[in-house]
Amino acid sequence: MERGLGGDLEEKYVMVTFQAGIDYWKTALKGFEDAANSLNVSVEYRGATHYDVHEQITVLEQVIARKPDGIAISAIDPEKITATINKAADSGIPVVLFDSGAPGSKASSFVGTDNYNAGVIGAEKLADLIGRKGKIGIISLPHQHNHQERIKGFQETITRKFPQIEVAGIKDGKGNELVSKQAALELLEEHPDIKGIFVTEANGGVGTGNAILSSKIKDKVEIVSFDADKETLDMIKDGTISATLAQGTWNMGYWSLQYLFHLKHNLTASSKLNIASTPPLPPKVDTGVTVVTKENVGDFYAR
Amino acid sequence: MERGLGGDLEEKYVMVTFQAGIDYWKTALKGFEDAANSLNVSVEYRGATHYDVHEQITVLEQVIARKPDGIAISAIDPEKITATINKAADSGIPVVLFDSGAPGSKASSFVGTDNYNAGVIGAEKLADLIGRKGKIGIISLPHQHNHQERIKGFQETITRKFPQIEVAGIKDGKGNELVSKQAALELLEEHPDIKGIFVTEANGGVGTGNAILSSKIKDKVEIVSFDADKETLDMIKDGTISATLAQGTWNMGYWSLQYLFHLKHNLTASSKLNIASTPPLPPKVDTGVTVVTKENVGDFYAR
Repeated sequence: MERGLGGDLEEKYVMVTFQAGIDYWKTALKGFEDAANSLNVSVEYRGATHYDVHEQITVLEQVIARKPDGIAISAIDPEKITATINKAADSGIPVVLFDSGAPGSKASSFVGTDNYNAGVIGAEKLADLIGRKGKIGIISLPHQHNHQERIKGFQETITRKFPQIEVAGIKDGKGNELVSKQAALELLEEHPDIKGIFVTEANGGVGTGNAILSSKIKDKVEIVSFDADKETLDMIKDGTISATLAQGTWNMGYWSLQYLFHLKHNLTASSKLNIASTPPLPPKVDTGVTVVTKENVGDFYAR
Repeated sequence: MERGLGGDLEEKYVMVTFQAGIDYWKTALKGFEDAANSLNVSVEYRGATHYDVHEQITVLEQVIARKPDGIAISAIDPEKITATINKAADSGIPVVLFDSGAPGSKASSFVGTDNYNAGVIGAEKLADLIGRKGKIGIISLPHQHNHQERIKGFQETITRKFPQIEVAGIKDGKGNELVSKQAALELLEEHPDIKGIFVTEANGGVGTGNAILSSKIKDKVEIVSFDADKETLDMIKDGTISATLAQGTWNMGYWSLQYLFHLKHNLTASSKLNIASTPPLPPKVDTGVTVVTKENVGDFYAR
């Protein structure tokens, strides 16, 4: 190849997460590395060890001090981390957000799941599973923005496309397995004829699965959950959970690196058109979800 | 450069539009060409001459017959063109949609304006212009999906963020300058204290501008319009229209070509992870809008 898009290995792009050791980030990092290999540049992985915004701010400060060629960060807290993100951007370091955004910041783009669309897909899947009629429930974190969006996409789709389905109740599972189990048991007690439950995060999905396993409900209750951690996949495999929505983490990492490379090399709309006020990159990228069921669950253990 | 991302000039990617001669597509094509230059591949521009779905189907059939390496198409009609898009996808030709989508089709991605988000930005701009309180109106195409989304984003933002603003009326401008002028005059007659109007497409914006110019209203009525054709820019320049939302057409073209290249070369999530059920690319990319006012209008004439 004589021409093409590429940098050199001295160029370094850094991915910054929180709870840096969990499996969830592995596929995002693989996407980041795959893009770096394609473009012939280097990457580094950093992150707060815990779920602690102050620790993430410290890590980000350290990364900024070393003047990398770009930073992709998943924001633990959209407000508290914004000043540090802006510090990076103001010092000329390209910054994009992935997975968990910070809408008020100066980062150039957000690459992650469109939670509203994920809710739409969850509604379509659950509707199909229950034969497009009957009562359903939702277990979520109704006070957290990304979960509100999932609920909104879900409910608006049910209303618009499935008039014979009724959302009988929404419970707060607090992102906790035991609280969610209790919430699911209450839902089943209040509505013994419930045919399906949409759960907007993984701990709640497992808790809901345990509720069904421990209850005396005889009719099948279909669960559609979120994310693809091992416990969820095990419950897909044994049929307790019917489907889960796996996020497009490889695409988050891959396109974050591409975007940082494009910012670094001035291959953006604002540069190419010479219009400073134009967004340099697409401001928002929906990396989509995959519906994981018994049929394709095997593929997801490998990740 | 020894390594990097690139193809060869024998590789051909085709952009397909409708009303192929209008200025609107020029910047999208420039983005498509810029990406092709970066990646060392070739492009071709084709399109229906008129606003005619049958002509676009014929053009697309001709393009498919020549087996290009990828097709980026802006769908004139999301339903009628779907079978032909699927024919391309089924024959193994990478296809992405840009600007105007076809949600039911087998195209791998849609790269274009998120109309809901554009409505959010329109609401914030109009709210600022009128000092965050008072009556406003909307002139739109309330029966067309992309315009419904713009209205929804606009109205939900007003409700959530600007409690002192009241949306007094929504009129159908039918995408026509004269009908929109008449609609604006009616709006002003019914609500003489109106302080701002959001118009969701360009002909309506110019019609609304003409309504204000011809009316005897003394107080300033702020107009926020859509798109950046010459007539709209002229009205921005002379102050008749306060702001307009220019779409990110360069990014539509640039990232469409990148996506087609990635599909062609199997540089996608489904290939790299070997999971057939995973979306290969981000299913939806919001290319954003630029708020054009007197301050930056000069930059947009150049396009």
